[in-house]
Amino acid sequence: MSGSPITIFVCVTCRLPIDGNENDFEKPGGELAAAIEARLQDAGASSIDVRPVECLSVCKRPCTIAFAGQNKWTYVVGGLDAKSHAAEIAAMAQRFATSEDGIIPWKERPLSFRKGVIARIPPRNLSNNGKS
Amino acid sequence: MSGSPITIFVCVTCRLPIDGNENDFEKPGGELAAAIEARLQDAGASSIDVRPVECLSVCKRPCTIAFAGQNKWTYVVGGLDAKSHAAEIAAMAQRFATSEDGIIPWKERPLSFRKGVIARIPPRNLSNNGKS
Repeated sequence: MSGSPITIFVCVTCRLPIDGNENDFEKPGGELAAAIEARLQDAGASSIDVRPVECLSVCKRPCTIAFAGQNKWTYVVGGLDAKSHAAEIAAMAQRFATSEDGIIPWKERPLSFRKGVIARIPPRNLSNNGKS
Repeated sequence: MSGSPITIFVCVTCRLPIDGNENDFEKPGGELAAAIEARLQDAGASSIDVRPVECLSVCKRPCTIAFAGQNKWTYVVGGLDAKSHAAEIAAMAQRFATSEDGIIPWKERPLSFRKGVIARIPPRNLSNNGKS
């Protein structure tokens, strides 16, 4: 795989209610981080760093992750399932790494990413106003 | 003012419905950006760059901004009013600039910032897992 080094932050404090009960929950972020990392290792994507973090302040849409890389737009994505979305997030991360500015064409984004975007933030050296 | 250079991205495409009508809206982001910039100029905060951008992908909570700076956590904040919140966002930006890592103690945050946080993203060189 080519591409610049990137980081996938994975929130490990997101609470996922069990059976809709707010007082009974699991924290599936750690499982998601491990699953994404395993897929990346299988793909030989050693320049992608998976980093568990304490709280991305999204909270209402577990699990939440963020893609970040130098000179790229940062993407915050929520509503991810540790079991069913790890493979496509790992693939999306590799596409993000090889992109020029972090913006991936809509048709190349998996459904979980299309539906899950919570925010995007430009790189600080953005030369235009973000209009594509 | 001391502190490292930071950027305030202000979404200028956020649509604010007028009288609850989705088809009748204004885009107050440009006014918010100008108001924050005017306050910063009054304060002599020349190291803070206010940058209007096309879409931070939040959309549902106009106006939306993001604070970003090297080696700092990035904060995305929505639900801001161009008229009533510009002064406290300008003050918060100056506090952000002088902070070590971008994390401002809760009691020092204005109400608009407390209520408006949509996401936060660590700096890529984060040395711990974000636990404070």
